[in-house]
Amino acid sequence: MSEHNQVTVNLGERSYDIHIRSSLLDDVSLIAGAIHGPKAVIVTNDTLEPMYARSLCKKLSEYKEVSIIKLPDGESYKTLDTLNLIFTQLLEERHDRSTTLIALGGGVVGDMTGFAAACYQRGVNFIQVPTTLLSQVDSSVGGKTGVNHPLGKNMIGAFKQPVGVFIDTSVLATLPDREFSAGMAEVVKYGLIWDHGFFEWLEANSSALSSRDAEALSYAIRRSCEIKAEVVASDETEKGQRAILNLGHTFGHAIETHFGYGHYLHGEAVAIGMKMAITLSLNLGSLDEKYLYRLDALLKSFGLPTNVPAEMTPECFFEHMSVDKKVSHGQIRFVVLVGKGEAEVTSNVNYEAVCSAIMACTE
Amino acid sequence: MSEHNQVTVNLGERSYDIHIRSSLLDDVSLIAGAIHGPKAVIVTNDTLEPMYARSLCKKLSEYKEVSIIKLPDGESYKTLDTLNLIFTQLLEERHDRSTTLIALGGGVVGDMTGFAAACYQRGVNFIQVPTTLLSQVDSSVGGKTGVNHPLGKNMIGAFKQPVGVFIDTSVLATLPDREFSAGMAEVVKYGLIWDHGFFEWLEANSSALSSRDAEALSYAIRRSCEIKAEVVASDETEKGQRAILNLGHTFGHAIETHFGYGHYLHGEAVAIGMKMAITLSLNLGSLDEKYLYRLDALLKSFGLPTNVPAEMTPECFFEHMSVDKKVSHGQIRFVVLVGKGEAEVTSNVNYEAVCSAIMACTE
Repeated sequence: MSEHNQVTVNLGERSYDIHIRSSLLDDVSLIAGAIHGPKAVIVTNDTLEPMYARSLCKKLSEYKEVSIIKLPDGESYKTLDTLNLIFTQLLEERHDRSTTLIALGGGVVGDMTGFAAACYQRGVNFIQVPTTLLSQVDSSVGGKTGVNHPLGKNMIGAFKQPVGVFIDTSVLATLPDREFSAGMAEVVKYGLIWDHGFFEWLEANSSALSSRDAEALSYAIRRSCEIKAEVVASDETEKGQRAILNLGHTFGHAIETHFGYGHYLHGEAVAIGMKMAITLSLNLGSLDEKYLYRLDALLKSFGLPTNVPAEMTPECFFEHMSVDKKVSHGQIRFVVLVGKGEAEVTSNVNYEAVCSAIMACTE
Repeated sequence: MSEHNQVTVNLGERSYDIHIRSSLLDDVSLIAGAIHGPKAVIVTNDTLEPMYARSLCKKLSEYKEVSIIKLPDGESYKTLDTLNLIFTQLLEERHDRSTTLIALGGGVVGDMTGFAAACYQRGVNFIQVPTTLLSQVDSSVGGKTGVNHPLGKNMIGAFKQPVGVFIDTSVLATLPDREFSAGMAEVVKYGLIWDHGFFEWLEANSSALSSRDAEALSYAIRRSCEIKAEVVASDETEKGQRAILNLGHTFGHAIETHFGYGHYLHGEAVAIGMKMAITLSLNLGSLDEKYLYRLDALLKSFGLPTNVPAEMTPECFFEHMSVDKKVSHGQIRFVVLVGKGEAEVTSNVNYEAVCSAIMACTE
């Protein structure tokens, strides 16, 4: 039998476990055990519905009354209107507060399902079953949920913790290369902000990971979840420390918004953004250039971009960054590294240093 | 100087005060003190904007940077689409997480502003400045926020506590009679579920209240807020006890939905619903008919309806009640009285008893 890894997110009465194993979806008793009421609804998208949702629905039906809500696939559908499709079907099927929602999919499905769970009848339980590397190592853990607004990404949402996260590493075998690479960007982030030893392990195992070696992948996912769980437990609603998880995201969101959702994948934009953030950290004087080259090489080894097209000028960045959630009292906040594996949030960055970091990472 | 009453809602780190006084809006320093960041946005409707919002905005501008968001007036606009108008203007004006929203209006404005505050950038502070009797004694206190869905009232929402509630009793002088009466329905409710002495005080003071005597009104509002604060503090997210505040609401929501939002005011539907609930309590054998006549007389003394038109059959009630949030595990739950001033939530009511209570209150 395959190894079963378990990571606990310690949040008092909102604590929950992350289960990581291959072929987890073959035996759904673990998932069924996390559903407390008599009914569950699987929320997924039209791509994943035939791949995983029908089979999960059939297997879970031995334990619970289960139905499926199918959303259109893609970040461009992560909107209030799509959210309303979930509410409408839940009401049509007369679900009450005892129903559990199951998010089966990537970050978009997880974010919307979690937000729907936060709002439907003022709150029902939900479970994350992430099917992309990015959602397995990042978005399914920690309770950030929400939808996009034409004027900004993730601007409408809630902190809503799932009651369990179930990661089947086998599903990664069929993940498109580009999506796999995008997920690796967030894995690299954990090495940068929290654990330099993990960063070095990623450097040493980059070929194994790129060829999706099961054992290497399983370790990378577990270590990522452990770090995320630790950071989230220390600051659930991002009053301070948790913001270090946004390394590269202030720049990254600006890139995503500028080119339109879907042009760059989130992880790709974050990869470029992280390089900018580390460049900014150098300019602040805390790390040497060699570390920047190592990061650049590691990101490239996973097939990730590290530079932004010249058409996106520093002015474009500032335009987008000024409406980001990471703005506080009108000041743009940046996550920087103060050492290897040590991150900090600061508003104390001057305009020139930011411009220079942007320029240094422009093609 | 007028009397300043203060009631605390004890919810640990989410505790806040309710301030009750006449002419409270003449001196806004109290409200300004509850705004922590540099900016505030007054959310109101187009009827109240010229009456109160402009003046409040002007006075608050001496302390903070303030703007106004104007929503269309009416329960029919309590939707996700209207909510999105709030998000759009907040984003256009580049508000970040340090902005405080101020709900200036009745229950519709309060519910939507609170829900917007719960979701904008995953949560900003908000203040309630209720301008109707109903919102002063009920909806502004306790953190229930949300919008309607075509398939059900308040089906989408969040528990989000305000950081302060500011009640100016002087604004009631201009409230239309019908809205004033609707508010009195919720006041009567507190006497029914919690404090028979208060019920008797309402009987003794019904003329003074109907003529909007300032002293009587001030006491009725304070006592209502005290009771609501006590119940909410014991069960913030309605896992049990808090549900007694829904006395008459299961029937009432069915009436509102059946006739369409706006035909019956919420308080009017609740008045009829309370009489049904007390009739149901009689059928369960816990109170005598004399109490029912007293309730009927008290509601009528405030100009409230106590019977539903015959076109709404018991079947109509069951159709609507089965999608209500108060349904749990498929069972309709009712709030009943087990004695004067003593309420209880039960699913243990048979179909015939409910039908008979509905019929007894049909014209």
